[in-house]
Amino acid sequence: MSERILKLTVEYDGTNYVGWQRQAEGVSIQALIEDALAPFEGRAVTVHAAGRTDAGVHALAQVASVVTSVAHDVATLQRALNAVLPADVRITSVEDAPSGFHARFDAVSKTYEYRIVNAPYASAFQQRYVWHVPGALNLDDMRAGAAVLVGRHDFSAFQATGAGVSTTVRTILALDLFDRDGSASEPAVLVLRITGDGFLRHMVRTIAGTLVDVGLGRWPAAYVSTILAGRDRTRAGRAAPAAGLFLVEVSYAARDFAL
Amino acid sequence: MSERILKLTVEYDGTNYVGWQRQAEGVSIQALIEDALAPFEGRAVTVHAAGRTDAGVHALAQVASVVTSVAHDVATLQRALNAVLPADVRITSVEDAPSGFHARFDAVSKTYEYRIVNAPYASAFQQRYVWHVPGALNLDDMRAGAAVLVGRHDFSAFQATGAGVSTTVRTILALDLFDRDGSASEPAVLVLRITGDGFLRHMVRTIAGTLVDVGLGRWPAAYVSTILAGRDRTRAGRAAPAAGLFLVEVSYAARDFAL
Repeated sequence: MSERILKLTVEYDGTNYVGWQRQAEGVSIQALIEDALAPFEGRAVTVHAAGRTDAGVHALAQVASVVTSVAHDVATLQRALNAVLPADVRITSVEDAPSGFHARFDAVSKTYEYRIVNAPYASAFQQRYVWHVPGALNLDDMRAGAAVLVGRHDFSAFQATGAGVSTTVRTILALDLFDRDGSASEPAVLVLRITGDGFLRHMVRTIAGTLVDVGLGRWPAAYVSTILAGRDRTRAGRAAPAAGLFLVEVSYAARDFAL
Repeated sequence: MSERILKLTVEYDGTNYVGWQRQAEGVSIQALIEDALAPFEGRAVTVHAAGRTDAGVHALAQVASVVTSVAHDVATLQRALNAVLPADVRITSVEDAPSGFHARFDAVSKTYEYRIVNAPYASAFQQRYVWHVPGALNLDDMRAGAAVLVGRHDFSAFQATGAGVSTTVRTILALDLFDRDGSASEPAVLVLRITGDGFLRHMVRTIAGTLVDVGLGRWPAAYVSTILAGRDRTRAGRAAPAAGLFLVEVSYAARDFAL
């Protein structure tokens, strides 16, 4: 049977998982999807994701690719995968991708949202999906700190210690901070939305933690420049908890999708 | 120290709990709140709720009352309770209640919502809070079936078998079925909103299950009259899953709140 490449869009509540990537211990999103595909394929398959989200991190639209020889049409595959996957992992789209497509290497940009509830308490239904920060945040100061990070920089100060990557230079294309309306029973959510050409390990969470420290008045906004220039992880703020982080979009160049 | 009665409004995600009521095994909402209050009181206290929600059932505004001799102001008590309760149980209000107030006996009506996702799949983030029904539902038929139930009736056919109550007559004051908007990543939710002077055990879930059976075309709407008149639990539909059920409001007569 001839090979084809499938592009899967995946939504998941990361609370109960060890993250995207297959691990020796615990259940990963990658293992769930690979194990769901294997019976169709008749052999083990490897699924590559655009972003290897950490334990507890969520996705609204993770993108994954897989080289496969299954002959089923995409709608049938989507239905079949959702029938066997747990209800907190959903395949929201299956498409045929062009020859050579790779979800990670072909990604042009990724957008993450980090969600914060800045109120005396978060709702009982928000707690898996936000970071609850009870102290009053100064948004103007946070925005001033955020502005420093936009552009092409060496983000060593904002990566997890010990992460081995060839370069720590990344470009942040946009970094916005805005309120998303709550409801009668849910406080509004402060959203930090960040788009970049790539992210180092824990980079979004360390940026969120650092900007919250600025918002709480622990550091002046200008100190974000000092942290960035120092390239020293021990200077930046704490990494914000995984629960508040969502991978919301992965973009590809239009030409990659020509079949 | 003189005694006072406190009225607590409580929001909880019931997923991880055995229900409101203290049980021999497992963690109940009642036990969490009683155990959180005990150190203030210096002795065990009993907290009474308006509705004894089952395992897995949620509440946006459960009401509970407690006779206490704690002297703290209500804002301090609310903060202190939320500091020790798990994040999926929140005290949204603490008020002083009039002498003799009892959350259950004084409740005039209760409103529940049963939430259904009627789409090929629910979102990964909805699954703890809805019943996913993939088959197409005929809402007109469901509304015709619902109309039969409004008013004062013997609801024996809709109670859990073996529930020992003195009377099975209850009055349903309102029963509405409507769509609540979804978002880009979440299908709309079909809400069955029901207000009554009281509910038998599993009554809302059995009504939801029966109306879904009508909506799927398994039974004609008129059959709901036959079930109601038969007073036989084995005739009604399955009880819908606990995850979709929310206690959303408890009403008291205005005079009960005069201090």
